[in-house]
Amino acid sequence: PDRLPAFATHQVGVAGAVVDESCGKVLVVQDRNKTQNAWKFPGGLSDVGENIGDTAVREVFEETGVRSEFRSLLSIRQQHKHPGAFGMSDMYLICRLRPLSYDINFCTHECLRCDWLDLAELARTTETTPITSRIAKLLLHGLEKGFHNIDLCVEELPAVCSAMFYQLYHRPLPEVKET
Amino acid sequence: PDRLPAFATHQVGVAGAVVDESCGKVLVVQDRNKTQNAWKFPGGLSDVGENIGDTAVREVFEETGVRSEFRSLLSIRQQHKHPGAFGMSDMYLICRLRPLSYDINFCTHECLRCDWLDLAELARTTETTPITSRIAKLLLHGLEKGFHNIDLCVEELPAVCSAMFYQLYHRPLPEVKET
Repeated sequence: PDRLPAFATHQVGVAGAVVDESCGKVLVVQDRNKTQNAWKFPGGLSDVGENIGDTAVREVFEETGVRSEFRSLLSIRQQHKHPGAFGMSDMYLICRLRPLSYDINFCTHECLRCDWLDLAELARTTETTPITSRIAKLLLHGLEKGFHNIDLCVEELPAVCSAMFYQLYHRPLPEVKET
Repeated sequence: PDRLPAFATHQVGVAGAVVDESCGKVLVVQDRNKTQNAWKFPGGLSDVGENIGDTAVREVFEETGVRSEFRSLLSIRQQHKHPGAFGMSDMYLICRLRPLSYDINFCTHECLRCDWLDLAELARTTETTPITSRIAKLLLHGLEKGFHNIDLCVEELPAVCSAMFYQLYHRPLPEVKET
């Protein structure tokens, strides 16, 4: 008998920080309805069955028109009784993405503004949220000292009870000896 | 108008790897019903409104009788269509804990065996799951080279739209300049 409660308790949202390493800029938006005048990373809720990186790439494209690819997981945020989550808890993951295109064509239903901003400026400005500011500082540190200092890498590992695979995110191991 | 779907899609589970740094041992269990003959870290589902670290400490105590305290977040696993999650997705977080007591008094409803195992042995044995094996290697690396190489630290940051706080997990910044 399984003594665990079997229902979903969390929303999972994903944000994508698309960093252009060649010029130190990052793609940011300002929401139309929520935190106005605050630069944020584009993002949104994960669909059922969707991997974290796929959500980030999809949401970034839907909101900004910019195509990108997943690089790493940077941060996890947990919040309870999220205003938009009907009393449920909210898990928010922030990914680092690399741009594959640069022209902005943003969704005017969701966003008021969208721009490539200097990471150093985003780390400094007060026109942002506390979390965006913190992640901007983290990304700036990665840009200057190497992203290996801030990244969680991802790998697929086989599940025990089924033919499926897990995505496992953790710090890179200098040398992984397979068993 | 909020265009986001507003329902919970994920279960969130948390495992606790309780590492005794003085002797390089880690607390592991073997499930009664599921993956038999496979050493795993104790853990279980997060209650609504419960922080990650609190879930890990609670589940470790309920399963093993060992008291511990939260140190860091080590890894995130995402899996879709988890057999126990009724088609929902499953997010599993693995925390590093420090023991506050050492005597084992394990829950015989859930566990068949419970022991303090050498991390080096857990990293080597085939009597474990692929993910436990990987995290054992990660912990062994941390034990040898410093846990700062593998830890995500946690910090509370104020939420924008409410008087609440977020728990934010990411790699430590060498010097955090508050805005």
